[in-house]
Amino acid sequence: MEAHLLSVLVENHPGVLFRVAGLFSRRGFNIESLAVGTTQVPAISRMTIIVLGNDHMIDQIVKQLSKLIQVLTIKILPAEAAVSRELILVKVAARPENRHQIVQIADIFRAKIIDVSRESLTIEMTGESDKTAALQEMLSEYGIIEIARTGVIALERGPSSISSASKEAREFKYGKPDGADSGAGE
Amino acid sequence: MEAHLLSVLVENHPGVLFRVAGLFSRRGFNIESLAVGTTQVPAISRMTIIVLGNDHMIDQIVKQLSKLIQVLTIKILPAEAAVSRELILVKVAARPENRHQIVQIADIFRAKIIDVSRESLTIEMTGESDKTAALQEMLSEYGIIEIARTGVIALERGPSSISSASKEAREFKYGKPDGADSGAGE
Repeated sequence: MEAHLLSVLVENHPGVLFRVAGLFSRRGFNIESLAVGTTQVPAISRMTIIVLGNDHMIDQIVKQLSKLIQVLTIKILPAEAAVSRELILVKVAARPENRHQIVQIADIFRAKIIDVSRESLTIEMTGESDKTAALQEMLSEYGIIEIARTGVIALERGPSSISSASKEAREFKYGKPDGADSGAGE
Repeated sequence: MEAHLLSVLVENHPGVLFRVAGLFSRRGFNIESLAVGTTQVPAISRMTIIVLGNDHMIDQIVKQLSKLIQVLTIKILPAEAAVSRELILVKVAARPENRHQIVQIADIFRAKIIDVSRESLTIEMTGESDKTAALQEMLSEYGIIEIARTGVIALERGPSSISSASKEAREFKYGKPDGADSGAGE
Protein backbone atom coordinates (compact mmCIF):
# COMPACT_ATOMS: atom_id res chain seq x y z
CA MET A 1 0.00 0.00 0.00
CA GLU A 2 1.72 3.07 -1.27
CA ALA A 3 0.80 6.70 -0.63
CA HIS A 4 -0.44 8.50 -3.74
CA LEU A 5 -0.99 12.21 -4.04
CA LEU A 6 -3.99 13.44 -6.00
CA SER A 7 -4.54 17.06 -6.90
CA VAL A 8 -8.16 17.72 -7.81
CA LEU A 9 -9.85 20.87 -9.06
CA VAL A 10 -13.50 21.05 -8.03
CA GLU A 11 -16.33 23.54 -8.24
CA ASN A 12 -16.50 25.65 -5.10
CA HIS A 13 -19.96 24.38 -4.00
CA PRO A 14 -21.17 23.47 -0.50
CA GLY A 15 -21.96 19.88 -1.50
CA VAL A 16 -18.68 18.95 -3.21
CA LEU A 17 -16.78 17.92 -0.10
CA PHE A 18 -19.74 15.77 0.92
CA ARG A 19 -19.74 13.96 -2.42
CA VAL A 20 -16.00 13.40 -2.50
CA ALA A 21 -15.90 12.28 1.13
CA GLY A 22 -18.86 10.00 0.46
CA LEU A 23 -17.10 8.35 -2.45
CA PHE A 24 -14.05 7.56 -0.32
CA SER A 25 -16.15 6.49 2.66
CA ARG A 26 -18.47 4.15 0.70
CA ARG A 27 -15.63 2.43 -1.08
CA GLY A 28 -13.47 2.16 2.02
CA PHE A 29 -10.58 4.07 0.45
CA ASN A 30 -8.16 5.18 3.10
CA ILE A 31 -7.58 8.96 3.06
CA GLU A 32 -4.25 9.68 4.71
CA SER A 33 -4.53 13.46 4.34
CA LEU A 34 -6.96 15.95 2.82
CA ALA A 35 -6.71 19.69 2.30
CA VAL A 36 -9.18 21.98 0.58
CA GLY A 37 -8.60 25.58 -0.38
CA THR A 38 -9.68 28.17 -2.88
CA THR A 39 -7.56 28.92 -5.97
CA GLN A 40 -6.91 32.09 -7.98
CA VAL A 41 -10.35 31.49 -9.53
CA PRO A 42 -13.00 32.03 -6.83
CA ALA A 43 -15.40 29.48 -8.34
CA ILE A 44 -12.78 26.72 -8.22
CA SER A 45 -11.25 24.98 -5.19
CA ARG A 46 -8.34 22.60 -5.11
CA MET A 47 -8.36 19.42 -3.05
CA THR A 48 -5.11 17.68 -2.27
CA ILE A 49 -5.73 14.08 -1.23
CA ILE A 50 -3.16 11.53 -0.08
CA VAL A 51 -4.57 8.06 -0.37
CA LEU A 52 -3.09 4.66 0.41
CA GLY A 53 -3.48 1.94 -2.18
CA ASN A 54 -1.99 0.02 -5.09
CA ASP A 55 -2.08 1.24 -8.70
CA HIS A 56 -5.35 -0.53 -9.42
CA MET A 57 -7.08 1.16 -6.49
CA ILE A 58 -5.79 4.57 -7.56
CA ASP A 59 -7.15 3.96 -11.06
CA GLN A 60 -10.53 3.17 -9.53
CA ILE A 61 -10.48 6.29 -7.39
CA VAL A 62 -9.59 8.52 -10.33
CA LYS A 63 -12.38 6.94 -12.40
CA GLN A 64 -14.95 7.38 -9.64
CA LEU A 65 -13.85 10.96 -8.91
CA SER A 66 -13.98 11.91 -12.58
CA LYS A 67 -17.63 10.81 -12.71
CA LEU A 68 -18.58 13.52 -10.24
CA ILE A 69 -19.93 16.45 -12.20
CA GLN A 70 -18.32 18.93 -9.78
CA VAL A 71 -14.85 17.48 -10.34
CA LEU A 72 -13.11 19.44 -13.09
CA THR A 73 -9.58 18.05 -13.25
CA ILE A 74 -7.59 15.31 -11.57
CA LYS A 75 -3.83 14.98 -11.55
CA ILE A 76 -1.73 12.31 -9.88
CA LEU A 77 1.44 13.98 -8.60
CA PRO A 78 4.42 11.63 -8.17
CA ALA A 79 6.42 12.62 -5.08
CA GLU A 80 9.60 13.29 -7.05
CA ALA A 81 7.81 15.66 -9.43
CA ALA A 82 6.12 17.81 -6.78
CA VAL A 83 6.86 20.14 -3.91
CA SER A 84 4.65 19.26 -0.97
CA ARG A 85 4.20 21.01 2.36
CA GLU A 86 2.04 20.87 5.44
CA LEU A 87 1.58 23.38 8.24
CA ILE A 88 1.59 22.43 11.89
CA LEU A 89 0.90 24.45 15.05
CA VAL A 90 2.19 22.88 18.27
CA LYS A 91 1.51 24.21 21.75
CA VAL A 92 4.13 22.84 24.11
CA ALA A 93 4.48 23.14 27.89
CA ALA A 94 7.38 25.53 28.63
CA ARG A 95 8.53 27.02 31.90
CA PRO A 96 11.00 29.90 32.16
CA GLU A 97 13.83 27.48 33.01
CA ASN A 98 13.48 25.28 29.93
CA ARG A 99 11.99 27.78 27.49
CA HIS A 100 15.36 28.47 25.84
CA GLN A 101 15.73 24.78 24.96
CA ILE A 102 12.43 24.83 23.10
CA VAL A 103 13.27 28.09 21.36
CA GLN A 104 16.52 26.49 20.21
CA ILE A 105 14.68 23.49 18.78
CA ALA A 106 12.35 25.87 16.94
CA ASP A 107 15.39 27.71 15.52
CA ILE A 108 16.97 24.49 14.29
CA PHE A 109 13.75 23.58 12.48
CA ARG A 110 13.38 27.17 11.18
CA ALA A 111 10.04 27.23 12.96
CA LYS A 112 8.45 30.39 14.39
CA ILE A 113 7.23 31.09 17.91
CA ILE A 114 3.79 32.64 17.47
CA ASP A 115 2.49 32.69 21.05
CA VAL A 116 4.05 32.61 24.49
CA SER A 117 2.62 32.40 27.99
CA ARG A 118 4.17 31.71 31.37
CA GLU A 119 3.56 27.99 30.91
CA SER A 120 3.50 27.46 27.15
CA LEU A 121 4.95 28.23 23.74
CA THR A 122 3.09 27.85 20.44
CA ILE A 123 5.24 26.99 17.44
CA GLU A 124 4.39 27.26 13.75
CA MET A 125 6.27 25.21 11.19
CA THR A 126 5.90 24.15 7.58
CA GLY A 127 7.65 21.28 5.86
CA GLU A 128 7.23 17.88 4.36
CA SER A 129 5.51 15.35 6.59
CA ASP A 130 8.73 13.80 7.89
CA LYS A 131 9.95 17.20 9.10
CA THR A 132 6.74 17.98 10.99
CA ALA A 133 6.89 14.47 12.50
CA ALA A 134 10.48 15.11 13.62
CA LEU A 135 9.54 18.43 15.28
CA GLN A 136 6.65 16.75 17.08
CA GLU A 137 8.98 14.00 18.29
CA MET A 138 11.56 16.52 19.58
CA LEU A 139 8.93 18.54 21.44
CA SER A 140 7.14 15.55 22.95
CA GLU A 141 9.53 15.30 25.90
CA TYR A 142 8.47 18.76 27.10
CA GLY A 143 4.79 17.85 26.97
CA ILE A 144 2.67 18.65 23.94
CA ILE A 145 -0.50 20.45 25.04
CA GLU A 146 -2.22 20.46 21.66
CA ILE A 147 -1.60 20.27 17.93
CA ALA A 148 -3.39 21.54 14.85
CA ARG A 149 -2.23 20.41 11.45
CA THR A 150 -3.40 21.11 7.93
CA GLY A 151 -3.38 18.35 5.40
CA VAL A 152 -0.54 18.23 2.86
CA ILE A 153 -0.75 20.49 -0.21
CA ALA A 154 1.44 20.14 -3.27
CA LEU A 155 2.25 21.69 -6.64
CA GLU A 156 4.03 20.12 -9.58
CA ARG A 157 7.64 21.23 -10.00
CA GLY A 158 8.41 23.45 -12.98
CA PRO A 159 6.23 25.86 -14.94
CA SER A 160 3.26 23.68 -15.92
CA SER A 161 -0.01 23.66 -14.01
CA ILE A 162 -2.78 21.23 -13.26
CA SER A 163 -4.73 22.76 -16.13
CA SER A 164 -2.41 20.91 -18.48
CA ALA A 165 -3.93 17.76 -16.99
CA SER A 166 -7.47 18.64 -17.91
CA LYS A 167 -7.30 16.55 -21.06
CA GLU A 168 -6.40 13.50 -19.02
CA ALA A 169 -9.38 14.20 -16.76
CA ARG A 170 -11.60 14.80 -19.74
CA GLU A 171 -10.52 11.48 -21.14
CA PHE A 172 -11.66 9.82 -17.92
CA LYS A 173 -14.81 11.85 -17.87
CA TYR A 174 -16.04 11.78 -21.40
CA GLY A 175 -14.12 8.78 -22.65
CA LYS A 176 -15.24 5.19 -22.76
CA PRO A 177 -18.46 4.61 -20.84
CA ASP A 178 -17.76 2.69 -17.67
CA GLY A 179 -18.42 -1.03 -17.83
CA ALA A 180 -18.86 -1.04 -21.59
CA ASP A 181 -15.99 -1.90 -23.91
CA SER A 182 -16.04 0.42 -26.84
CA GLY A 183 -14.87 -1.10 -30.10
CA ALA A 184 -14.37 2.28 -31.72
CA GLY A 185 -11.13 2.73 -33.60
CA GLU A 186 -10.26 -0.96 -33.60
CA MET B 1 -23.06 36.93 8.55
CA GLU B 2 -19.94 36.70 10.62
CA ALA B 3 -17.12 34.20 10.30
CA HIS B 4 -16.87 31.82 13.25
CA LEU B 5 -14.00 29.47 13.91
CA LEU B 6 -14.80 26.02 15.29
CA SER B 7 -12.15 23.64 16.52
CA VAL B 8 -13.45 20.08 16.65
CA LEU B 9 -11.80 16.89 17.89
CA VAL B 10 -13.09 13.82 16.08
CA GLU B 11 -12.30 10.14 15.97
CA ASN B 12 -9.85 9.38 13.19
CA HIS B 13 -12.26 7.19 11.16
CA PRO B 14 -12.77 7.09 7.37
CA GLY B 15 -16.45 8.05 7.68
CA VAL B 16 -16.14 11.09 9.95
CA LEU B 17 -15.44 13.65 7.27
CA PHE B 18 -18.40 12.32 5.29
CA ARG B 19 -20.72 12.75 8.26
CA VAL B 20 -19.52 16.22 9.13
CA ALA B 21 -19.57 17.37 5.50
CA GLY B 22 -23.07 15.86 5.15
CA LEU B 23 -24.34 17.78 8.14
CA PHE B 24 -23.12 21.09 6.68
CA SER B 25 -24.31 20.21 3.19
CA ARG B 26 -27.84 19.11 4.21
CA ARG B 27 -28.45 22.16 6.34
CA GLY B 28 -26.95 24.57 3.83
CA PHE B 29 -24.36 25.89 6.27
CA ASN B 30 -21.69 27.77 4.43
CA ILE B 31 -18.18 26.39 5.11
CA GLU B 32 -15.63 29.11 4.39
CA SER B 33 -12.63 26.96 5.20
CA LEU B 34 -11.95 23.44 6.45
CA ALA B 35 -8.75 21.73 7.51
CA VAL B 36 -8.31 18.23 8.91
CA GLY B 37 -5.18 16.82 10.46
CA THR B 38 -4.03 14.27 12.97
CA THR B 39 -3.13 15.29 16.53
CA GLN B 40 -0.58 14.00 19.05
CA VAL B 41 -3.05 11.15 19.68
CA PRO B 42 -3.17 8.98 16.52
CA ALA B 43 -6.81 7.97 17.08
CA ILE B 44 -7.94 11.61 17.19
CA SER B 45 -8.03 14.19 14.40
CA ARG B 46 -8.71 17.89 14.68
CA MET B 47 -10.97 19.71 12.25
CA THR B 48 -10.79 23.46 12.01
CA ILE B 49 -13.91 24.86 10.38
CA ILE B 50 -14.67 28.47 9.51
CA VAL B 51 -18.37 28.95 8.98
CA LEU B 52 -20.42 32.02 8.12
CA GLY B 53 -23.52 32.69 10.16
CA ASN B 54 -25.16 34.51 13.03
CA ASP B 55 -25.01 33.34 16.65
CA HIS B 56 -28.20 31.31 16.35
CA MET B 57 -26.85 29.38 13.36
CA ILE B 58 -23.58 28.67 15.15
CA ASP B 59 -25.56 27.32 18.13
CA GLN B 60 -27.43 25.02 15.76
CA ILE B 61 -24.22 23.81 14.14
CA VAL B 62 -22.60 23.06 17.50
CA LYS B 63 -25.71 21.17 18.62
CA GLN B 64 -25.85 19.13 15.42
CA LEU B 65 -22.13 18.40 15.46
CA SER B 66 -22.23 17.32 19.09
CA LYS B 67 -24.87 14.71 18.23
CA LEU B 68 -22.42 12.89 15.99
CA ILE B 69 -20.95 10.03 17.96
CA GLN B 70 -17.52 10.49 16.34
CA VAL B 71 -17.31 14.12 17.49
CA LEU B 72 -15.47 14.27 20.81
CA THR B 73 -15.07 17.95 21.59
CA ILE B 74 -16.12 21.26 20.08
CA LYS B 75 -14.70 24.63 20.88
CA ILE B 76 -15.62 27.99 19.40
CA LEU B 77 -12.44 30.07 19.12
CA PRO B 78 -12.97 33.85 19.07
CA ALA B 79 -10.48 35.48 16.69
CA GLU B 80 -8.92 37.62 19.42
CA ALA B 81 -8.26 34.57 21.62
CA ALA B 82 -6.59 32.43 18.96
CA VAL B 83 -3.57 32.30 16.69
CA SER B 84 -4.67 31.23 13.22
CA ARG B 85 -2.60 30.44 10.14
CA GLU B 86 -2.99 29.08 6.67
CA LEU B 87 -0.39 27.82 4.21
CA ILE B 88 -0.34 28.81 0.57
CA LEU B 89 1.80 27.63 -2.36
CA VAL B 90 1.80 29.96 -5.37
CA LYS B 91 3.45 29.21 -8.71
CA VAL B 92 4.01 32.44 -10.56
CA ALA B 93 5.30 33.11 -14.07
CA ALA B 94 8.85 34.52 -13.80
CA ARG B 95 11.40 35.22 -16.47
CA PRO B 96 15.07 35.93 -15.77
CA GLU B 97 14.51 39.68 -16.25
CA ASN B 98 11.74 40.05 -13.66
CA ARG B 99 12.64 37.19 -11.32
CA HIS B 100 14.39 39.53 -8.86
CA GLN B 101 11.18 41.55 -8.43
CA ILE B 102 9.29 38.45 -7.39
CA VAL B 103 12.07 37.31 -5.08
CA GLN B 104 11.91 40.73 -3.43
CA ILE B 105 8.16 40.44 -2.89
CA ALA B 106 8.71 37.01 -1.33
CA ASP B 107 11.36 38.51 0.99
CA ILE B 108 9.03 41.30 2.10
CA PHE B 109 6.36 38.74 2.97
CA ARG B 110 8.97 36.46 4.62
CA ALA B 111 7.91 33.81 2.15
CA LYS B 112 10.20 31.08 0.83
CA ILE B 113 11.06 30.17 -2.75
CA ILE B 114 10.71 26.39 -2.93
CA ASP B 115 10.99 25.74 -6.66
CA VAL B 116 12.43 27.59 -9.61
CA SER B 117 12.41 26.93 -13.35
CA ARG B 118 13.31 29.08 -16.34
CA GLU B 119 9.73 30.35 -16.54
CA SER B 120 8.38 30.04 -13.01
CA LEU B 121 8.92 30.43 -9.28
CA THR B 122 6.98 28.57 -6.59
CA ILE B 123 6.54 30.44 -3.32
CA GLU B 124 5.51 29.06 0.08
CA MET B 125 4.02 31.36 2.71
CA THR B 126 2.09 31.06 5.96
CA GLY B 127 0.03 33.73 7.61
CA GLU B 128 -3.43 34.86 8.51
CA SER B 129 -5.87 34.94 5.60
CA ASP B 130 -5.42 38.66 4.89
CA LYS B 131 -1.66 38.17 4.47
CA THR B 132 -2.03 35.29 2.01
CA ALA B 133 -4.60 37.37 0.10
CA ALA B 134 -2.14 40.29 -0.04
CA LEU B 135 0.65 38.06 -1.41
CA GLN B 136 -1.70 36.67 -4.03
CA GLU B 137 -2.71 40.19 -5.03
CA MET B 138 0.93 41.34 -5.33
CA LEU B 139 1.89 38.34 -7.47
CA SER B 140 -1.15 38.47 -9.73
CA GLU B 141 0.41 41.05 -12.05
CA TYR B 142 3.19 38.61 -13.00
CA GLY B 143 0.70 35.89 -13.84
CA ILE B 144 -0.28 33.25 -11.31
CA ILE B 145 0.05 29.79 -12.86
CA GLU B 146 -1.52 27.85 -10.01
CA ILE B 147 -2.26 27.97 -6.28
CA ALA B 148 -2.70 25.37 -3.57
CA ARG B 149 -3.94 26.46 -0.17
CA THR B 150 -4.70 24.63 3.04
CA GLY B 151 -7.65 25.66 5.12
CA VAL B 152 -7.04 27.81 8.19
CA ILE B 153 -5.91 26.10 11.41
CA ALA B 154 -5.91 27.73 14.83
CA LEU B 155 -4.99 27.20 18.46
CA GLU B 156 -6.20 29.09 21.49
CA ARG B 157 -3.69 31.59 22.87
CA GLY B 158 -2.14 30.76 26.25
CA PRO B 159 -1.53 27.44 27.96
CA SER B 160 -4.98 25.81 27.91
CA SER B 161 -6.07 23.29 25.33
CA ILE B 162 -9.24 22.22 23.61
CA SER B 163 -9.47 19.38 26.15
CA SER B 164 -10.57 21.96 28.70
CA ALA B 165 -13.64 22.38 26.49
CA SER B 166 -14.66 18.77 26.65
CA LYS B 167 -17.12 19.45 29.47
CA GLU B 168 -18.92 21.94 27.30
CA ALA B 169 -19.11 19.36 24.54
CA ARG B 170 -20.23 16.69 26.98
CA GLU B 171 -22.95 19.00 28.16
CA PHE B 172 -24.17 19.26 24.58
CA LYS B 173 -23.78 15.57 24.05
CA TYR B 174 -25.03 13.94 27.20
CA GLY B 175 -27.04 16.80 28.61
CA LYS B 176 -30.75 17.36 28.22
CA PRO B 177 -32.20 15.12 25.54
CA ASP B 178 -32.99 17.14 22.46
CA GLY B 179 -36.57 18.34 22.23
CA ALA B 180 -37.47 17.05 25.70
CA ASP B 181 -37.25 19.26 28.77
CA SER B 182 -35.85 17.22 31.60
CA GLY B 183 -37.31 17.98 35.01
CA ALA B 184 -34.56 16.10 36.81
CA GLY B 185 -33.05 17.90 39.79
CA GLU B 186 -35.78 20.49 40.00
